Amino acid sequence: MGDNYQLNTTTLIRHAARTHPDQEIVYRTTRGGWDRYTYADCYERICRTANALRALGVAPGDRIGVLDWNSRRHFELYYAIAGLGAVMLQMNLRLGVDDLRYVVGHSHATFVLVDETLLETAEAIAAPTPDVKGWIVMTDRPPSEIKTTLAPLYHHESMLANADARIEWPMIDERSAYSACYTTGTTGRPKGVYYSHRAIYLHSMSMATNLGMTMDDCTMLITPMFHAQCWGLPQAATLMANKIVLSGRYVMEDTASLVDTLIAEGVTITCGAPAIFQPMLHYIETLPVKPDFSRLRMLSGATEPPLSMMMGFLELTGAEVVHAYGATETTPIVTLNRLKPSLKKHLSQEERWRLKRKQGMLVSGVDFKILGHNDEELPWDGRSVGEICVRGAWIATSYHDMPDSTDRFIDGYWRSGDVGTIDADGYLKLTDRIKDVIKSGGEWISSIDMENALMGHPAVREAAVVGLPWRISAIEPGRFRRLSPPMDR
Amino acid sequence: MGDNYQLNTTTLIRHAARTHPDQEIVYRTTRGGWDRYTYADCYERICRTANALRALGVAPGDRIGVLDWNSRRHFELYYAIAGLGAVMLQMNLRLGVDDLRYVVGHSHATFVLVDETLLETAEAIAAPTPDVKGWIVMTDRPPSEIKTTLAPLYHHESMLANADARIEWPMIDERSAYSACYTTGTTGRPKGVYYSHRAIYLHSMSMATNLGMTMDDCTMLITPMFHAQCWGLPQAATLMANKIVLSGRYVMEDTASLVDTLIAEGVTITCGAPAIFQPMLHYIETLPVKPDFSRLRMLSGATEPPLSMMMGFLELTGAEVVHAYGATETTPIVTLNRLKPSLKKHLSQEERWRLKRKQGMLVSGVDFKILGHNDEELPWDGRSVGEICVRGAWIATSYHDMPDSTDRFIDGYWRSGDVGTIDADGYLKLTDRIKDVIKSGGEWISSIDMENALMGHPAVREAAVVGLPWRISAIEPGRFRRLSPPMDR
Repeated sequence: MGDNYQLNTTTLIRHAARTHPDQEIVYRTTRGGWDRYTYADCYERICRTANALRALGVAPGDRIGVLDWNSRRHFELYYAIAGLGAVMLQMNLRLGVDDLRYVVGHSHATFVLVDETLLETAEAIAAPTPDVKGWIVMTDRPPSEIKTTLAPLYHHESMLANADARIEWPMIDERSAYSACYTTGTTGRPKGVYYSHRAIYLHSMSMATNLGMTMDDCTMLITPMFHAQCWGLPQAATLMANKIVLSGRYVMEDTASLVDTLIAEGVTITCGAPAIFQPMLHYIETLPVKPDFSRLRMLSGATEPPLSMMMGFLELTGAEVVHAYGATETTPIVTLNRLKPSLKKHLSQEERWRLKRKQGMLVSGVDFKILGHNDEELPWDGRSVGEICVRGAWIATSYHDMPDSTDRFIDGYWRSGDVGTIDADGYLKLTDRIKDVIKSGGEWISSIDMENALMGHPAVREAAVVGLPWRISAIEPGRFRRLSPPMDR
Repeated sequence: MGDNYQLNTTTLIRHAARTHPDQEIVYRTTRGGWDRYTYADCYERICRTANALRALGVAPGDRIGVLDWNSRRHFELYYAIAGLGAVMLQMNLRLGVDDLRYVVGHSHATFVLVDETLLETAEAIAAPTPDVKGWIVMTDRPPSEIKTTLAPLYHHESMLANADARIEWPMIDERSAYSACYTTGTTGRPKGVYYSHRAIYLHSMSMATNLGMTMDDCTMLITPMFHAQCWGLPQAATLMANKIVLSGRYVMEDTASLVDTLIAEGVTITCGAPAIFQPMLHYIETLPVKPDFSRLRMLSGATEPPLSMMMGFLELTGAEVVHAYGATETTPIVTLNRLKPSLKKHLSQEERWRLKRKQGMLVSGVDFKILGHNDEELPWDGRSVGEICVRGAWIATSYHDMPDSTDRFIDGYWRSGDVGTIDADGYLKLTDRIKDVIKSGGEWISSIDMENALMGHPAVREAAVVGLPWRISAIEPGRFRRLSPPMDR
């Protein structure tokens, strides 16, 4: 068998470009309009980008930072950097400048590519970043129009224009790092998770099979591309040679344009958090003619999607919100909520909706267990509550260069810090973060369930439940007043 | 990343049994009736089988022969033997007894499992097979009713009844052999192809994504399970936790029952050769009410499916015949014929049908090229004719223990011996076996195209085109008469 044929992301994009050269990639420009090009065009720019980076001295193993929105250049960098055997460092725009500077330093990134709209952020990060040998600005404008203190500065499009459109890709060992993403907890410095080519490749296939992706699908990437590689959907969409729509930077600010594009481009798969989907639903409610989204699956992560939102999308448009669970450490897919055939037969409508709120079923290729207080394995009975521990071909087994974090891993499993149950049908239900667990009167209480119950009341928009030691649980009104109005996000 | 988490078939079946315990497997009994059990039941029998084999002394690396139809026991052996780290030897019932004895000897098989209906064949193979330490008869009847000269003889169901239903599976390196299948050419001894766990696992994911399989599919296995592991469809169906239908032994003899079961069980995916599908279509033509097979994809291999058959299935039932190309050496999937979105837009009905007859597009995960007379790479232009060479994660890179066959491999590619073209859209069209290529008047002539053109005439049922040196190409009527009547198959 061809066991030395390596799984890597270059074969994904090369295959798609060769067999589906005319397939479209639709993207948002810096100014907010929409434009499109083909897989063949995209692949040519990927080759040019790789040659340009190589000319700068980028070598296998180098870490290369990317500070960008969901742009077509970002998509190209997903393949160009990794194709050279270098490692794309995903720079999370939501992190503070100090944390981003730490991430660049900890990963020893040698170059950083920056979208022109993020130059100020880059400047704030830059001093000091001693390992960085250069900053590459990505813009449609000519070099003369770019004003920045970043130095040395390179102009991405000029480099591409001068680069060869053909490349002989190096053979990459599938266990080489493809990219790095730093995750933040509530305390401490960001922790680096490195993803191998093998992990990304297998994750793509799993995402495609579990979401039921075909080459007729059109995938719109709304989840930030700097966040666990946009949940691996860009690579899965490439595997399936999907038409791809890149949402650009105006996600929260321009809900109408997102929905209009879903309709205009015939999107059938998208991804995002409820915080993005909720305003889209509100916008749809205002439309005189509701769109037909009966082919659309909306992969929803980050938090449990509100039932009213899932019902709203289904009733108004036919779209299915598919809740999934994962984390930066899990590439991220662990579970996906789809109704399995044996349950379709006998669940009532109400039971179906209750099930839809769970985090979903384990996908093939990963494995999990629930551990109790003494690290004993708990049964899948829908009642036993414990910490979810995950292992598999795309699950982290360590944090990069962080020796004091080994307590987060046990027997090849990653300890998620998430607490929940698994029912006899294999569906995961999270109840808490391990640090938020509340015990009252000898019973465990789920802060997530309490929050959702409170938010089910029409007068409550958001709710946050926190546990307090019993000594101060006597009512002290002044102490809680600050939490009463809706939290500003 | 969890890069040491191994890809193997045990995780496929264990995952399916754990997350879809109630999913059904429908199978045909020895007497020709239909019965059913669940993934949970099946998995328990797999564990018992593995324990029983281990008790007989079966160890990792041992080759274990299987002589059986598409039975539930055969399906269980797919996972039980490999789960122990042993290697399932697929024994092709269509081979002659001498070849089967050679295969058992060449692979050094230590045990052979035999369906009771095949005891005579096994007896003919048995003398002499010095490496075989025992024969295991698979039957629903008690040991006392089995009459055979095979010795030492074991009774499968008795062993299972006494075996533990729980097992601690060994951790299997993904590059270990999962099974072996011997391929035959027109001359010489069968050649052994060994499939790794990794190859089978990746092939399953590819089959699932390329056929668009979901957990709502029901897959009926008609292709013999001793033939390139039934084209990898059993493992793909397990990956997707499909309802599975096992066709048993009465395939050619009982077309009506096959079609009735397709209808009754709601089959959506099946596989076979045109020689199987054609009688099914004839039977459907006789039905007063045509079945609705609008969800059915019929994976068709071995030879190019006749256009009239593909049209017949579509028009009468809505079923799509999907032509695919592969070989024992390729696990087998290389290409699959589905219409890609960019072509849907502008192909006429006639052009679509012409395309449907091609072998299809390269699937992601494998790579091919066409080589000319001097091993130069030819362009994908739909005109340049050369030998198809294939490489990839599930493509053989050698024949087992056959050092004089290295000429069948070049630069990591397997030389298929098939001759054809690849068009600009990436669709493969075979024109000949390399040994059958005909040149006349300086032009290459496709024997396959000529045969199909001849068979398009209503008075011609089958045609075989052979090339002859020009010296004897003058008409010698007596020489050809034997080919004129329809060939008896």
